[in-house]
Amino acid sequence: MLRNCIVSKMPFFNFLFMNRLYHQKLITKHSLMCINYTHNLAGKQQRIKENVQPVNKFVSRSHTCGELRLQNVGENVQLCGWLEFLRADKFLVLRDSYGSTQFIIPTHRKDLQEMARNLTFESILSIEGRVLKRPEGQKNKCMGTGDIEVEIKSLKVLNIASLNIPFIIRDYNKANENVQMKYRYISLRYPELQKNLRLRSEVIMKMREYLIKECNFVDIETPTLFKNTPEGAHEFIVPTKLLDQFYSLVQSPQQFKQLLMVGGFDRYFQVARCYRNEKPRHDRQPEFTQLDIEMSFVDCEGIMMLIENLLAYSWPQESGELTIPFKHLKYEDAMELYGTDKPDLRIPQQLCRLTELIDHSVLEQSLKMEQNEHREVYALVFSQKHDFLTKSIKDTISELQCTYFPSVKLIQTKIPNKSPVITNIIDGNVQQKLNLKKGDVLFLACGEKVNTQSLLGKVRLEFTKFLESEDQEIFTSRNELLWITDFPLFSFNTETNSLETMHHPFTQPHPDDMQYLMNNPLKVRGLHYDLVMNGFEIAGGSIRIHDSKLQKQLFKMLNIDETHLMHVLDALESGAPPHGGIAIGLDRLMCLLCNTKNIKDVIAFPKTTTGRDLMSGAPVPISEEIKRFYNIQTVDK
Amino acid sequence: MLRNCIVSKMPFFNFLFMNRLYHQKLITKHSLMCINYTHNLAGKQQRIKENVQPVNKFVSRSHTCGELRLQNVGENVQLCGWLEFLRADKFLVLRDSYGSTQFIIPTHRKDLQEMARNLTFESILSIEGRVLKRPEGQKNKCMGTGDIEVEIKSLKVLNIASLNIPFIIRDYNKANENVQMKYRYISLRYPELQKNLRLRSEVIMKMREYLIKECNFVDIETPTLFKNTPEGAHEFIVPTKLLDQFYSLVQSPQQFKQLLMVGGFDRYFQVARCYRNEKPRHDRQPEFTQLDIEMSFVDCEGIMMLIENLLAYSWPQESGELTIPFKHLKYEDAMELYGTDKPDLRIPQQLCRLTELIDHSVLEQSLKMEQNEHREVYALVFSQKHDFLTKSIKDTISELQCTYFPSVKLIQTKIPNKSPVITNIIDGNVQQKLNLKKGDVLFLACGEKVNTQSLLGKVRLEFTKFLESEDQEIFTSRNELLWITDFPLFSFNTETNSLETMHHPFTQPHPDDMQYLMNNPLKVRGLHYDLVMNGFEIAGGSIRIHDSKLQKQLFKMLNIDETHLMHVLDALESGAPPHGGIAIGLDRLMCLLCNTKNIKDVIAFPKTTTGRDLMSGAPVPISEEIKRFYNIQTVDK
Repeated sequence: MLRNCIVSKMPFFNFLFMNRLYHQKLITKHSLMCINYTHNLAGKQQRIKENVQPVNKFVSRSHTCGELRLQNVGENVQLCGWLEFLRADKFLVLRDSYGSTQFIIPTHRKDLQEMARNLTFESILSIEGRVLKRPEGQKNKCMGTGDIEVEIKSLKVLNIASLNIPFIIRDYNKANENVQMKYRYISLRYPELQKNLRLRSEVIMKMREYLIKECNFVDIETPTLFKNTPEGAHEFIVPTKLLDQFYSLVQSPQQFKQLLMVGGFDRYFQVARCYRNEKPRHDRQPEFTQLDIEMSFVDCEGIMMLIENLLAYSWPQESGELTIPFKHLKYEDAMELYGTDKPDLRIPQQLCRLTELIDHSVLEQSLKMEQNEHREVYALVFSQKHDFLTKSIKDTISELQCTYFPSVKLIQTKIPNKSPVITNIIDGNVQQKLNLKKGDVLFLACGEKVNTQSLLGKVRLEFTKFLESEDQEIFTSRNELLWITDFPLFSFNTETNSLETMHHPFTQPHPDDMQYLMNNPLKVRGLHYDLVMNGFEIAGGSIRIHDSKLQKQLFKMLNIDETHLMHVLDALESGAPPHGGIAIGLDRLMCLLCNTKNIKDVIAFPKTTTGRDLMSGAPVPISEEIKRFYNIQTVDK
Repeated sequence: MLRNCIVSKMPFFNFLFMNRLYHQKLITKHSLMCINYTHNLAGKQQRIKENVQPVNKFVSRSHTCGELRLQNVGENVQLCGWLEFLRADKFLVLRDSYGSTQFIIPTHRKDLQEMARNLTFESILSIEGRVLKRPEGQKNKCMGTGDIEVEIKSLKVLNIASLNIPFIIRDYNKANENVQMKYRYISLRYPELQKNLRLRSEVIMKMREYLIKECNFVDIETPTLFKNTPEGAHEFIVPTKLLDQFYSLVQSPQQFKQLLMVGGFDRYFQVARCYRNEKPRHDRQPEFTQLDIEMSFVDCEGIMMLIENLLAYSWPQESGELTIPFKHLKYEDAMELYGTDKPDLRIPQQLCRLTELIDHSVLEQSLKMEQNEHREVYALVFSQKHDFLTKSIKDTISELQCTYFPSVKLIQTKIPNKSPVITNIIDGNVQQKLNLKKGDVLFLACGEKVNTQSLLGKVRLEFTKFLESEDQEIFTSRNELLWITDFPLFSFNTETNSLETMHHPFTQPHPDDMQYLMNNPLKVRGLHYDLVMNGFEIAGGSIRIHDSKLQKQLFKMLNIDETHLMHVLDALESGAPPHGGIAIGLDRLMCLLCNTKNIKDVIAFPKTTTGRDLMSGAPVPISEEIKRFYNIQTVDK
């Protein structure tokens, strides 16, 4: 069936050449062969294939390329896969998602040797053969199937790969990210992506199992084509055939899940697709997935316990230990100790408030600051790291301060430091409080409270990152999960001079703070909780308002036009149970479980930071005809 | 806590009145009470609640309203739910999604009687009490909990329902569909919707279980924001911030699932959201869900076996028996015997071709038709149903013929019929062939083949529907599933004078028909299969083209500009395994499993036929600011 041709002494170049011939002359014959294959390969005998592994049911192979072991020696097998290696007209290696298997061509089979020479890497082969034990000394311990090899009886080329394939699956000389995204269908063959996406499927299945089987939840699909939300500045819109009528793609199923509670579905979940057209950021995609959960007759504790048990149930062994219950920290304490509401507890260092210990007039004089009685002073100490406070990291940190917190003064120093400025400020009391020793590194910041805390929070991460890069072990290896609670319900936007919600307008105010709602709203906490893992927010939720009068009041305080949300208010008056819920960001959780920082590593077909699909080119221009159909026209701003 | 007030003799009107007072004066107090509830209800003691039913984990209730039985007598319980009934200051019934429970107020508890009088139907209550055996003679056999009642110790009103609630949950006087859709959050409380959506969740979970656990499939999420497809006239578009750059919402994950096969994920599935902006039809929604499946190294048989086993595994008991393997019928045979490619095999009647038995000149003369040698004659007989061939059904069927098949002649008659027209045509041979007996009904049609078959196919359904409405049993009660195969690959559009694909351009031509591809393409069958249940198509799929040259050829034949699909062609050249797949329409399957004809009965928040969400009003106008952001303007055609 295949053309005979001269065999070069350089097998690789030879097969490239052969392949070109093959492509030019034989493609029709080949193509027909493949079609016949797909029609006949399994046929009726599949119906009686009973004791087959789950992964091989209903298909033509008898085993995957990762399956054969010593106990299979002597069996006749059929394997299908991608050509990974070819060597000396004798050995070839097939790869599929489950592993690789080595095949040998018997010396007398000139026909097979001929065929092999014509093959390109990544071509699809189907091979029948007999499993042999590898000769002693030729076993490969790095290969799951390294104890055996398969002697080829027949080989079919199911699809030949082009010579112009942009890259092949090797550990070295990897293509850059953009090339890998353009040819995503090839990079998906890399073992890492195979592993990540398979793990994602497993973890989500375990979550479903826990919710449905262990807790009687109901998986309910809610619409994604919906109405714009009052605060939805970043929603994608979808024109319809009706003049000037648009859907918006949901940012989350928030309203629907609350309405389901009103509708009597007291335990809802959904693996929900959500859409946000936000500013480009490396860990954001225009569409993303969250595990969305809502329950009736529940309180904060109930939701947190559910999530702890859910994660414990679905946690993959390879992602390290998980201990429940998780730690709890109030928002205020998180800011006080870590300068962030997403503290990474794997870093042991904490901030220390020095405001009362420091002589503020000395401080102001030394640092040439104006007098300000609201000034706070915080310190952060890295014990015995003074070798690492290099000029370079100091500059990085100074830049960070100048960019984000220009109003905060920052001292970065090794201990001891004999300069008068430092010795004036760091007196004996302070030294004792901080337990300062020779060789320590001290960061000291003063300014408005939240900014001062936040600056040191960032310094804590930045200096740790630097120490890690210098092979200093700072992170503990544990997974550190904790709940942050008691968030403020509102923040104040000084630009618009108005209250804004910290999370969303449906969050229930804390019952102990109801007396402040009207006259001191910034003091009101919300019944909101975030779950933080190793410095990343992986889930957030709240108990919701179920009283329509209170909900109306909040809309009013937040300047939200209630006429757009009448269905929510009506629903709360129609028998709405107390309810609350949470959403887990699955893309980010999977990053942590797969130990990658790149969100694209856990998504099959990711878009670039600017929302471009490099493979298909989307988004693209559309025809005038389609625009007319949707009653729109493009206008340049 | 609640106001004392005068008690009327008419409990229903009284409680309406009380409730109004309550609403006007007491709402703040009430609202605070509810908030306290949500914060404190479960608290720390939840942490030690161990041996609790799955459905009651993490929440405040001890049991659902459908759970208590005789063995619970004597227990102290806490139930939460919707107030369903109130009677004589003494009895009240709480309902939740799991059932109803009757509560009694002890005669001496005037405070509780007072509270009860203030309640509105559908208000949310939390009740603590003790389970009692109902007195003999007062048991309710229609109620799961009918053997017991709960004596109230304490009652909390968690949320009062408005007096203006548009409807309450009763079996009689149901609100019309539009009102039910506007207040969907109330109609979701109806037991039928509760049952359907819970069944949907269960069935889909079983499908996942089968695919993942029994067959090693991987659940992979693919993007919905994509590029328009060449034939995508009915795709929704999504403008982006980039001038004149649009995403399109996917009609299905077709391209992605094929690319996953190229990427080495040899067994993929997804419960996928799909979008189609098609003409309004009662069984269509702008977004819908399909179970999307694709496999490598598979043939038609393999996919069909997978689906048979998948459905057998996930089939709910209450939906009747399912027998596998399913029947098979070729497209041509389905048309020949049933006049449709979606035959309902529960109807035993088949078409019978009479073309060769009939004297065509007699036929033409009798029916005053022009001579036409391509004319076909088909008959359909309903045995012993002549009483039911009323003028009314004859008119309905004639209208059907005039509307859809004006070129086909149709005779509808009881047997015997002595009119010369009939006796001329129906001679002895025909009578024998059709086994015609006195009392039968005969439909006889002649015209162009496919139209003639199709007309009788519709008559078969229409007359059966009529017989059913007259209490004549025609349908067998079995579930009749069958595969339709050997579809033509192309159809010919006489308006545009061009070939069109019957399904999609990625379908593999039948290997036995490859020789006709260039010179007689209408003779080529595709490796496509549809699954039909009781007359509805519930799944469809095909073996795909994996050879890029053949794919290019098909694009060319179909006038598809390949430049828009270069990523697909490139992928087929980069090591693409032979592959095929299928998609099950979950909305329609659930209709059949739930025994409803209305697709809205199996979707939580359906839209109207015209794509309107009556609850929120979506789609809606958007602000000029948002239009500017997306560089678009609305224009009236």
